[in-house]
Amino acid sequence: MHPPSIQKLIDLFSKFPTVGPRTAARFVFYLMGKSQEEIEELTKSILELKEKVKICPFCFNSFEGESKLCPICSNPSRDKTLLCIVEKEIDLEAIEKIKKYRGLYFILGGTVSTFKKGDIEKLRIKELVKRIKERAEVQEIIIAVNPTAEGKATALYLERALKPFNKKITRLGRGLPVGGELEYADEETLSSAIEGRK
Amino acid sequence: MHPPSIQKLIDLFSKFPTVGPRTAARFVFYLMGKSQEEIEELTKSILELKEKVKICPFCFNSFEGESKLCPICSNPSRDKTLLCIVEKEIDLEAIEKIKKYRGLYFILGGTVSTFKKGDIEKLRIKELVKRIKERAEVQEIIIAVNPTAEGKATALYLERALKPFNKKITRLGRGLPVGGELEYADEETLSSAIEGRK
Amino acid sequence: MHPPSIQKLIDLFSKFPTVGPRTAARFVFYLMGKSQEEIEELTKSILELKEKVKICPFCFNSFEGESKLCPICSNPSRDKTLLCIVEKEIDLEAIEKIKKYRGLYFILGGTVSTFKKGDIEKLRIKELVKRIKERAEVQEIIIAVNPTAEGKATALYLERALKPFNKKITRLGRGLPVGGELEYADEETLSSAIEGRK
Amino acid sequence: MHPPSIQKLIDLFSKFPTVGPRTAARFVFYLMGKSQEEIEELTKSILELKEKVKICPFCFNSFEGESKLCPICSNPSRDKTLLCIVEKEIDLEAIEKIKKYRGLYFILGGTVSTFKKGDIEKLRIKELVKRIKERAEVQEIIIAVNPTAEGKATALYLERALKPFNKKITRLGRGLPVGGELEYADEETLSSAIEGRK
Repeated sequence: MHPPSIQKLIDLFSKFPTVGPRTAARFVFYLMGKSQEEIEELTKSILELKEKVKICPFCFNSFEGESKLCPICSNPSRDKTLLCIVEKEIDLEAIEKIKKYRGLYFILGGTVSTFKKGDIEKLRIKELVKRIKERAEVQEIIIAVNPTAEGKATALYLERALKPFNKKITRLGRGLPVGGELEYADEETLSSAIEGRK
Repeated sequence: MHPPSIQKLIDLFSKFPTVGPRTAARFVFYLMGKSQEEIEELTKSILELKEKVKICPFCFNSFEGESKLCPICSNPSRDKTLLCIVEKEIDLEAIEKIKKYRGLYFILGGTVSTFKKGDIEKLRIKELVKRIKERAEVQEIIIAVNPTAEGKATALYLERALKPFNKKITRLGRGLPVGGELEYADEETLSSAIEGRK
Repeated sequence: MHPPSIQKLIDLFSKFPTVGPRTAARFVFYLMGKSQEEIEELTKSILELKEKVKICPFCFNSFEGESKLCPICSNPSRDKTLLCIVEKEIDLEAIEKIKKYRGLYFILGGTVSTFKKGDIEKLRIKELVKRIKERAEVQEIIIAVNPTAEGKATALYLERALKPFNKKITRLGRGLPVGGELEYADEETLSSAIEGRK
Repeated sequence: MHPPSIQKLIDLFSKFPTVGPRTAARFVFYLMGKSQEEIEELTKSILELKEKVKICPFCFNSFEGESKLCPICSNPSRDKTLLCIVEKEIDLEAIEKIKKYRGLYFILGGTVSTFKKGDIEKLRIKELVKRIKERAEVQEIIIAVNPTAEGKATALYLERALKPFNKKITRLGRGLPVGGELEYADEETLSSAIEGRK
């Protein structure tokens, strides 16, 4: 029903995370109301992403600039004995924001729900193992994946895969979140809260 | 905290309808995972919007192609005695989709919550009046704005503005929607349902 | 896990509409904090329901007092040519509240999703037919059931069952409710809104 | 609009936790459809609450039976060195359900948002202090209030009030709940999760 060039762009926006066809259509109508300058500012910014932004060869975090490693990995005051494995860049950012962790990161690139070879190969397991071999100074590996079903399967896989390296392996503390109520907590969360009391 | 070229794009996506900074960041991380070809397909599609898509000089609907008017306005089998005023293109599409209306449209470009001159001038009132003057064949004007507070204020303004032309002016039927329940209906909706029984 | 007298009451409250075991438990703990006087006020009020409240033999509405019919049925100023069929008492109240309808009511006692004999017999169809036969003055029968799937099946059944009486039969007006938006309306609602424009 | 005996009962049900006038009305209509036997079963059950259910003089839990203390307090296999302070009975039940805690309880009777004398006196602080003085065997006091704003204020007050007794005082573990996501966690919860890793 839409003209082809509108439909094409709706299809492309529909692939964006959280965006369905209806929202994609709103995006297109929004862009149609913008001036030629605004449109070019947007397309130029999108193209520059690929040109300017680099991926850190150690942790896979994105950054910009002349240095070889990202600002976290190249910061001499970070604690090189700690390695925190996160699923995706936005989780790394969430942890950085609270300013409680001073170690290094490794972005795994996803989670798995099964241990099938095809699923596992989508994660950066080989790269992770390589980092741990290269960096003898790492003493604790923090598996900071989400306590969802997929995250728990992934954590289990990681624990097994990293066991041979004889490092301390930890997971994020589990328990009641701020504002949580005992009455409505699931049994697993409440068990963690009771057992993890301090 | 983000590199400047990422932050710039987050800011631009944050202006998209329904998008906040968190979703905008997800869009950027999504794009960073795309190949150069996919990025260029997206930017090319965005740029082509302005080049290929035309706005119909009668109804302000967007379309593509060589013809002067949009496919609806240039369709000889549409009923030229009916003119349906909608707020925005997406409402026109919603009505087209149900295939019950065979008349013409006019996209008003928004709604107003006040009758202040500055607000009113954002709507295409002058263009609407011009169309009605030019097209003596129009017999019924359907004010198909949403029955929200803003929509009702806009409908009231339109009724006054269009009164001098002595056309039949109608509004969309009001009542219980599919799946609605009397018990939970607001009084105005229930009144419309009782009075509009048939 | 609960003492038996608590569990018994939780079970009874769990049968109340919209109440699950968790809410039922909260009700019981609430009652346990009440004084003996307050508890007796509640149980006395519950027992008085059966004693004082009568069901109107014409419309099946509940009422209190010495008169034979309910206040609506015995009100000489109500329009006896109109009969509005509702599913349940709370719907009758919703319509009374808007003060736009001045006719009589008939409470059907439910809706059906199938036309099976067992389902149909749960409704007061026989009583309804009897009322319509007795009251020759009825000119319009308004089928005011909810436009849900069950409501629509029930309305269809009623239309067929009442057809032999040659009365005007109407249904509630359908369309966009207050605050509704064309963009998000289902096709049936939007069709009703277009066709029912006025 | 309702008959007085219906309105009276709606008013009483409206005071139940989580119940508004609309739900209260549904409760009344539900009861009106019940038989005399069912109504009497309900009112008898409500009256028996006060007669049969006793409050444990140690922990304030409710129970039924001939014994002086509740089944938990009179169970010789429970660990008397642990005392878990909960806000309300339903929290005690939530903890019992997960079968991970084998100590005793104390139901505080609420939480406070301020340390004003009037507010504090609504809690069973005096009784709690008395229990701890009487029971030298208590070694750990677990403050198991919700990590809400009120709960945290209450926990702070309890910690201060119980400090003179030189017992180990713990709180529930905090962190990400099952199904929680780093990306959406508040900073305090994420800090607890990082610091409480294990």
